[in-house]
Amino acid sequence: MFDKVTLKLNVDPLIISALREDITSEDVSANSVMRETQAGEADLICKEYGVICGLQVFERVFKILDEESSVEFYVKDGDQVSKGQLMAKVKGDIRVLLCGERTALNYLQRMSGVATYTRSMASVLEGTKTKLVDTRKTTPNNRIFEKYAVKIGGGGNHRYNLSDGVMLKDNHIGAAGGVKKAIEMAKEYSSFVRKIEVEVENMDMVKDAVEAGADIIMLDNMTHEQMKEAIDFIAGRAEIEVSGNVTRENIAALADLGVDYISSGALTHSSPILDISLKNLHTI
Amino acid sequence: MFDKVTLKLNVDPLIISALREDITSEDVSANSVMRETQAGEADLICKEYGVICGLQVFERVFKILDEESSVEFYVKDGDQVSKGQLMAKVKGDIRVLLCGERTALNYLQRMSGVATYTRSMASVLEGTKTKLVDTRKTTPNNRIFEKYAVKIGGGGNHRYNLSDGVMLKDNHIGAAGGVKKAIEMAKEYSSFVRKIEVEVENMDMVKDAVEAGADIIMLDNMTHEQMKEAIDFIAGRAEIEVSGNVTRENIAALADLGVDYISSGALTHSSPILDISLKNLHTI
Amino acid sequence: MFDKVTLKLNVDPLIISALREDITSEDVSANSVMRETQAGEADLICKEYGVICGLQVFERVFKILDEESSVEFYVKDGDQVSKGQLMAKVKGDIRVLLCGERTALNYLQRMSGVATYTRSMASVLEGTKTKLVDTRKTTPNNRIFEKYAVKIGGGGNHRYNLSDGVMLKDNHIGAAGGVKKAIEMAKEYSSFVRKIEVEVENMDMVKDAVEAGADIIMLDNMTHEQMKEAIDFIAGRAEIEVSGNVTRENIAALADLGVDYISSGALTHSSPILDISLKNLHTI
Amino acid sequence: MFDKVTLKLNVDPLIISALREDITSEDVSANSVMRETQAGEADLICKEYGVICGLQVFERVFKILDEESSVEFYVKDGDQVSKGQLMAKVKGDIRVLLCGERTALNYLQRMSGVATYTRSMASVLEGTKTKLVDTRKTTPNNRIFEKYAVKIGGGGNHRYNLSDGVMLKDNHIGAAGGVKKAIEMAKEYSSFVRKIEVEVENMDMVKDAVEAGADIIMLDNMTHEQMKEAIDFIAGRAEIEVSGNVTRENIAALADLGVDYISSGALTHSSPILDISLKNLHTI
Amino acid sequence: MFDKVTLKLNVDPLIISALREDITSEDVSANSVMRETQAGEADLICKEYGVICGLQVFERVFKILDEESSVEFYVKDGDQVSKGQLMAKVKGDIRVLLCGERTALNYLQRMSGVATYTRSMASVLEGTKTKLVDTRKTTPNNRIFEKYAVKIGGGGNHRYNLSDGVMLKDNHIGAAGGVKKAIEMAKEYSSFVRKIEVEVENMDMVKDAVEAGADIIMLDNMTHEQMKEAIDFIAGRAEIEVSGNVTRENIAALADLGVDYISSGALTHSSPILDISLKNLHTI
Amino acid sequence: MFDKVTLKLNVDPLIISALREDITSEDVSANSVMRETQAGEADLICKEYGVICGLQVFERVFKILDEESSVEFYVKDGDQVSKGQLMAKVKGDIRVLLCGERTALNYLQRMSGVATYTRSMASVLEGTKTKLVDTRKTTPNNRIFEKYAVKIGGGGNHRYNLSDGVMLKDNHIGAAGGVKKAIEMAKEYSSFVRKIEVEVENMDMVKDAVEAGADIIMLDNMTHEQMKEAIDFIAGRAEIEVSGNVTRENIAALADLGVDYISSGALTHSSPILDISLKNLHTI
Repeated sequence: MFDKVTLKLNVDPLIISALREDITSEDVSANSVMRETQAGEADLICKEYGVICGLQVFERVFKILDEESSVEFYVKDGDQVSKGQLMAKVKGDIRVLLCGERTALNYLQRMSGVATYTRSMASVLEGTKTKLVDTRKTTPNNRIFEKYAVKIGGGGNHRYNLSDGVMLKDNHIGAAGGVKKAIEMAKEYSSFVRKIEVEVENMDMVKDAVEAGADIIMLDNMTHEQMKEAIDFIAGRAEIEVSGNVTRENIAALADLGVDYISSGALTHSSPILDISLKNLHTI
Repeated sequence: MFDKVTLKLNVDPLIISALREDITSEDVSANSVMRETQAGEADLICKEYGVICGLQVFERVFKILDEESSVEFYVKDGDQVSKGQLMAKVKGDIRVLLCGERTALNYLQRMSGVATYTRSMASVLEGTKTKLVDTRKTTPNNRIFEKYAVKIGGGGNHRYNLSDGVMLKDNHIGAAGGVKKAIEMAKEYSSFVRKIEVEVENMDMVKDAVEAGADIIMLDNMTHEQMKEAIDFIAGRAEIEVSGNVTRENIAALADLGVDYISSGALTHSSPILDISLKNLHTI
Repeated sequence: MFDKVTLKLNVDPLIISALREDITSEDVSANSVMRETQAGEADLICKEYGVICGLQVFERVFKILDEESSVEFYVKDGDQVSKGQLMAKVKGDIRVLLCGERTALNYLQRMSGVATYTRSMASVLEGTKTKLVDTRKTTPNNRIFEKYAVKIGGGGNHRYNLSDGVMLKDNHIGAAGGVKKAIEMAKEYSSFVRKIEVEVENMDMVKDAVEAGADIIMLDNMTHEQMKEAIDFIAGRAEIEVSGNVTRENIAALADLGVDYISSGALTHSSPILDISLKNLHTI
Repeated sequence: MFDKVTLKLNVDPLIISALREDITSEDVSANSVMRETQAGEADLICKEYGVICGLQVFERVFKILDEESSVEFYVKDGDQVSKGQLMAKVKGDIRVLLCGERTALNYLQRMSGVATYTRSMASVLEGTKTKLVDTRKTTPNNRIFEKYAVKIGGGGNHRYNLSDGVMLKDNHIGAAGGVKKAIEMAKEYSSFVRKIEVEVENMDMVKDAVEAGADIIMLDNMTHEQMKEAIDFIAGRAEIEVSGNVTRENIAALADLGVDYISSGALTHSSPILDISLKNLHTI
Repeated sequence: MFDKVTLKLNVDPLIISALREDITSEDVSANSVMRETQAGEADLICKEYGVICGLQVFERVFKILDEESSVEFYVKDGDQVSKGQLMAKVKGDIRVLLCGERTALNYLQRMSGVATYTRSMASVLEGTKTKLVDTRKTTPNNRIFEKYAVKIGGGGNHRYNLSDGVMLKDNHIGAAGGVKKAIEMAKEYSSFVRKIEVEVENMDMVKDAVEAGADIIMLDNMTHEQMKEAIDFIAGRAEIEVSGNVTRENIAALADLGVDYISSGALTHSSPILDISLKNLHTI
Repeated sequence: MFDKVTLKLNVDPLIISALREDITSEDVSANSVMRETQAGEADLICKEYGVICGLQVFERVFKILDEESSVEFYVKDGDQVSKGQLMAKVKGDIRVLLCGERTALNYLQRMSGVATYTRSMASVLEGTKTKLVDTRKTTPNNRIFEKYAVKIGGGGNHRYNLSDGVMLKDNHIGAAGGVKKAIEMAKEYSSFVRKIEVEVENMDMVKDAVEAGADIIMLDNMTHEQMKEAIDFIAGRAEIEVSGNVTRENIAALADLGVDYISSGALTHSSPILDISLKNLHTI
């Protein structure tokens, strides 16, 4: 769950913006047939096997629309859920339930989708020292939700954004005039509380990175042989990350190499949603 | 392309919000190694076969950060692109290119993913009277982009949101006290410029809907036999929509029934992204 | 009344903006003489005959400033009120009452003015099939209030804005290359849930519009003779709207023609306000 | 005209908000038939006699939508205009002209209405020492436009809002414990750059106000006899304002009394709009 | 204390913006070790002698983050506090306390610093007719807090901003073509509720200012001799302000001259903060 | 200088907010005497010895108000300036110069004050391995400006805010159940790109911190003897920070101990401003 402060300062504004996207004046359909407040209840049902995530956001949508809405949960974020499972009951003014339903489900389905896919990939790494982490390849204006879902799915988070982590890629290295110079410039410019990560493509760069005191070295576009050589050379003097097209097929082999982190953009940009629906809405 | 007005009023604010999500103070890495403005250029390369969509948004990200940025395009939205194809060249201050790259690609990949998947489904309907349309199952704060991508992919748009279309579902019908009463109330309450759509589950409801003058009838949870009976009964007196889990396998059969519209949430919530990258960034 | 969701998402932000227009730092006068919270009460008095509208907005102004404010109403939106009538009692911190008074009354007077004038015009149409509707000629940043007031006054709403209704005027027809082509393009471009309205000036255009399947035909600048001919020709195949300088004098004649809708910009742009004041503010 | 700074900081945000009210996604009609930018031009025509006001705001609407729009004016704010007069030509992308037309006219018509009515009232006071001024009875979120229009019409502005002027009414006086005490408290609490205005109802209050050093005294609910007595007593020791239901009939008599200011809420809340339209839109 | 309305409309948005500056996604440290809500309490301790100011803002920071937070105060704004003094106890979710601590103290320390320094300067003027007032030399986006602190410290407020007071300086006078002309233009242009202040540098300007009816005359860059001459000449026909580098050393001499107001930018731009800390945070 | 992207996304909104604080409707004084645009120029003069900082922000204020404003600089951020030195010439519409002057100077004076004080402290550390860094004790809504000024003054930045750095203090350690447990939880919870800093008060905590792999250890409330012992024990296995009341007197002694970082809140919360003014504004 997001803590209260994060919810208030950084989550609520996004939810409100999403609600305004869906309701620019009023819900014409609901208001046509329901002129007065009427108490109602609906069931939150899972329609396929997966990892549920985003229950607090689901609830928050209704709470933002009407503080008197309430949700009784039978599962919690991270739980495995299965087809047909009753996960929660939502109560409130029926018009509020109808107005919030789509936005609430759009968040819940997406977050659960990310958590489910992440779990499926992370589970392969269980028992190894390697951790699966996300990237900045998130859906615009949905990063806080998707990074949270990765954690619920058992993954870890890479830097949050461009402002809170240093990652020196080929262009930075080129601009600086070499790996060593780039690391030196980053150490001088950025706050000392940041680790310096550098992306390397060959052994010369690996050596320079270790020598210049990189905190994290990302091995890019290397063969398994090259990676093995690099890892041996680094020998614990920096943390090691590999990225690229990670699949259920190749992820175990990467872990076997003994890298510390495997990052995957697919966790957030290509997880299919988890099918969930609100059923049996009725007056109470 | 979005027209200038839509871009200014309704697209730009979302892009700016996405950029602020990624840059809460500064791009520490770029600023570490590039203390001055330096002109640069990069290639926009497609990494797999698909339908490109969102080029204007891609360009807009850089233009918002720096009006002097420019993009030269070799393709346009809706074009089929293939692996390795050079689609555009981006020019500008290298720091601006680095700051905008991720957000620009996050939009472009997602929009192209939606367009690609929509095209693959819509193509099955070519030559029929049936049109594939989207739903409100869009990613929060991304509806304007995703609905546009559906059109580029050859689909059509259902209502934009709760405020601009009337759709009477089981709960509305229940609240009103029947199909006829619900349609009547909606005609009375909503603006006369709106069509009234009603979701029906059986022949009695179909008959009531036609009689009460529904403009669009959505057949829900019906077998092919039932749908056939309903369509025969309606006989052009209302437009007909079907929804549900539409797949490449079952979509042709639905079209054969002669329905007017097939709506699919998957177009926007489950299309995998199209893999695209910015390569060969260099100073000029 | 606005439902809770509309109030929260689309009404409150406008009220808050209006309050900030009136209070850029503090209410200097009230704070000069009242340094502490003090409970007070005032009477909402109508000062002339009319239709009251906007009571919820009136109350909301005080609730936004201080949730502990309360209003006891003796009338409801749509009621006819007369000179000297006590319509409500407002209670709360006197400083809050003083701070909100002007903004609350500015809304209430304007909305009641629109409702009162609309009622006076709509009453002429009673017993006919013709409905009086509004236009987009609303006061900037006050549309949601004014369109609501039109309904309370017994009128109907035309499209809410440029995004949720299709209205093809002479310029659109010119750009498309004719009535038929324009309707065809609109049917192709816009969502199928929108009706297509087209503005016509002569019988040729009327015929084209009917043939191309326009949903609504607006007769523009026609004589009664021409309108009669057009209405006979259309014969129920489309809804019919007339617009223009509608007055209490000519409105009955338009209704006699049997048109479906008469739209009038004056409802929202030229209704005089209804005189209302807050009296007898005293401590309790 | 608003100066550049006011325009940028305080006018533009309101115009943009008004445009978003009218275009929540796109202009469906224009986009249906015009897929590409096309240069166009239209005539701004006055449809009745009045005082034009708001030309800069009219132009700004189009400039905000597209900087390449331009307006050539043949009149300026404050000019008397007559039926059929060509006041300006607007050029730009036709879609931009269509998108901005309604909002631009809604502002121009309202501001011109206020200026026209103010001019008609203020002209009665010409040659006297008395000045007609406005009140805070403005349309919510339109104060900056309406107060400007009052000045263009030949009136003056009262305080802008609750934060920038001190006005002590019966409730303030009651809370303070008398006229003298209220004035004393206001002098102590508020910035010394503010004048203190106090509303009085009888001669005792007038005397207290003068003695306590009120800068402005507002005579409320007094007969002409009483006002005459009060004015004689004040004898230039404070400025004098009268308010109330000011009409063309009674305004001259008020001026004859020799008051400094007559304030009228009707200037901003009940001026009918001036009828203006955009005609002859054509491609160029 | 700020009244409720000012707090809601004009203070809260600034506090929320400050909190978002400090928490762009979440408090990583607190969330690392505290996964659940836990009630806690801390002591607000003064660490040096001074005048406390901003207690309501301090409390508001926590209330905004979580309405269930509470503060028990043992002092009130304006009280003198001394080293080691327990001023308040804060209770709430420990994570909320940790998240709000820095922002709450940043406000409290700055406001108390301004109040403390103002008190030290204002105390010199006690028993004289001269009042110490602030300027517009405030910290950007902190004016409402700093002007309040000046009052708590015993000073007065000059105009709030450029929109609510008229101050004619050399450039205005130059543009108008002389002191008299400038005053005349300001009287004509600005609302009659504003006093006109004019800055003068020699006796000719003083005479012109008095003659033209300036309400306040600011003596700029004059020697004591010149000021004495000016004050004698003005003889109560206008209020008199002096500004410039006011110190504890020269302020008494200025007061002896009998000026009405001494303004000092240092009150808000150079007061050192008052050292305050939150101690002994513990679970309860 | 801030790069273009930071300026656009994160600096401009704060400047605009500051300008709106000073101009809620218009600059009454300037508009009284200058009804038309008139080109003008003014000199930016330093009035005391110091380090100039914020020139870009100074310029930006005028550019935001009017893009045609321009500033010609004769110094750059970080330069030492002296009393009477002409630092820049500003050109533009005189009304724009008058409207922006105060806000521009408020920023420039504060930023230069921070840079000047930081330089005076940092210079003591020259030639040592110790770096002076700032804290989160910044002025609300001014952090981006003040942290930049610290760098210009020769200091370094600590974490930007609560979201981008991990700092475990006594409360975190207490909540976790010890130093080791806290570090372990932070490593597990936070992104691997963050360094873990822990605040320790005695040798046991130092040992635990080193053992648990803290990246940075802050020595809190220790005597020089204790610090020496701690530094010897750590022996390069973690970076070392000390904080507290750093003065020109004690800073050298801290550096002699060989700590890596000395942090000081006073850099941002108690630097006096640098006196700067805009002189000789004249038409051109």
